[in-house]
Amino acid sequence: MKDFRNRQQQRPKKNTLVIGRQAVIAAMEGGKQLERIYLQATVHGDVIDTIRLLAEKSLVPINKVPVEKLNSFNVSNHEGCVAVISKIQYQNLQDVISFTVEKGETPLFVMLDSITDIRNIGAIARSAFCFGVHAIIIPDKGVGALNEDAILTSAGALEKLAICRVNSLMKAVDELHLNGIRVFASEMTADKKVFDIDLKEPCAIVLGGEEQGIYPALMKICDEQFQIPMTGDFESLNVSVANGIILYEVMKQRIRG
Amino acid sequence: MKDFRNRQQQRPKKNTLVIGRQAVIAAMEGGKQLERIYLQATVHGDVIDTIRLLAEKSLVPINKVPVEKLNSFNVSNHEGCVAVISKIQYQNLQDVISFTVEKGETPLFVMLDSITDIRNIGAIARSAFCFGVHAIIIPDKGVGALNEDAILTSAGALEKLAICRVNSLMKAVDELHLNGIRVFASEMTADKKVFDIDLKEPCAIVLGGEEQGIYPALMKICDEQFQIPMTGDFESLNVSVANGIILYEVMKQRIRG
Repeated sequence: MKDFRNRQQQRPKKNTLVIGRQAVIAAMEGGKQLERIYLQATVHGDVIDTIRLLAEKSLVPINKVPVEKLNSFNVSNHEGCVAVISKIQYQNLQDVISFTVEKGETPLFVMLDSITDIRNIGAIARSAFCFGVHAIIIPDKGVGALNEDAILTSAGALEKLAICRVNSLMKAVDELHLNGIRVFASEMTADKKVFDIDLKEPCAIVLGGEEQGIYPALMKICDEQFQIPMTGDFESLNVSVANGIILYEVMKQRIRG
Repeated sequence: MKDFRNRQQQRPKKNTLVIGRQAVIAAMEGGKQLERIYLQATVHGDVIDTIRLLAEKSLVPINKVPVEKLNSFNVSNHEGCVAVISKIQYQNLQDVISFTVEKGETPLFVMLDSITDIRNIGAIARSAFCFGVHAIIIPDKGVGALNEDAILTSAGALEKLAICRVNSLMKAVDELHLNGIRVFASEMTADKKVFDIDLKEPCAIVLGGEEQGIYPALMKICDEQFQIPMTGDFESLNVSVANGIILYEVMKQRIRG
């Protein structure tokens, strides 16, 4: 079903930008959280290598772009490098897992694959926060910047909840598995129903986009698939509603034991 | 929690309007479904009485408005009377109940109180359709016209699902009760949890707006209140997500017996 809510992303405001190579390096060294770095595709050299290394270390995605993209920010002296300051405090997945386990809680994660609409992500975060999810895991590519619109849709939850941005969801699943966390995929055509899955154990729920669903290779390494039962055969729930239902089922199983 | 999605309503397009007193009468006599009639506050007489009678019979709400409102439609010769053609086929509540019972199904209704955002109503309709709800009951006042935006958010469900527009939700509850249908209210502060309510019996679920909740007098005549359990004390789910969760719980209880 087509997700009609996709809308053109707003251009970042000037005060949310870091402009120029040294400024971007200083921002990362100073621990400032960056949403994304736009690097002119044709620039090279030691300073650029430093930016790449720091970005990799800080898990900041780099977009290689033509100079026109950088010019479109309408700033002077960009030197082929502009970064957008993040509104979200991204966190390291292993850190969140360790912290959760140390607190004595049963890990619960939501992983989003191919969910590009940031309003859906905001709505998912709102329910996730209500149901005590420990972190939302999103890929660093294919997702728009989590801007004011996303934060508003989340009713502020995006600023309170841990968000783990990873460069590979496949690797994130490996990391979850290494920590004894099972990974369950929501898939309309699955045989098992969500209430037949044991959600009391540490687990992560994978949700796919409304159009293309979960990437097959990712689906393959998930431990189980489940569906939410419905009466209509050809209908589908909005992904943020599906997310709410699944998290409710987790909550219910964990309350009732 | 503030519902930020409220947006200014679009002005209806000219081809969705019926203009002038006799045209509005003819439309109603011809069985055309009208969303709403705008009547100039200062007009009187036999023809106006006829319009009022027909509107009452056809359950079309009348808004008494100053002439400026009618002029804003930018049509000539409105004669103090303009109607908006409905995109929705509204249905009579008793008819839907009878039809459902005759089919041998267990009635399931969703009643919306103070939910003014038509996108939330659209989202609620989408899930309602997926879970086999027999009708959504909405009041004829305080709800924006269910326009293209609402239909889009509902993924078309608003055009397939029965929508019953009533001039009093209190009377609608009486009608449900007379038909042996129990009425349950979703209320964050309720003691009972949704999974402790018997939803296998014929029932209607009342949902309130995110800001003011369910009107106290309406709450009072509901049979029971329940809450969706959450971890955070001061957080609330989006009403369309809450709707999805409740309908999932109904579905689950009815599947599992």
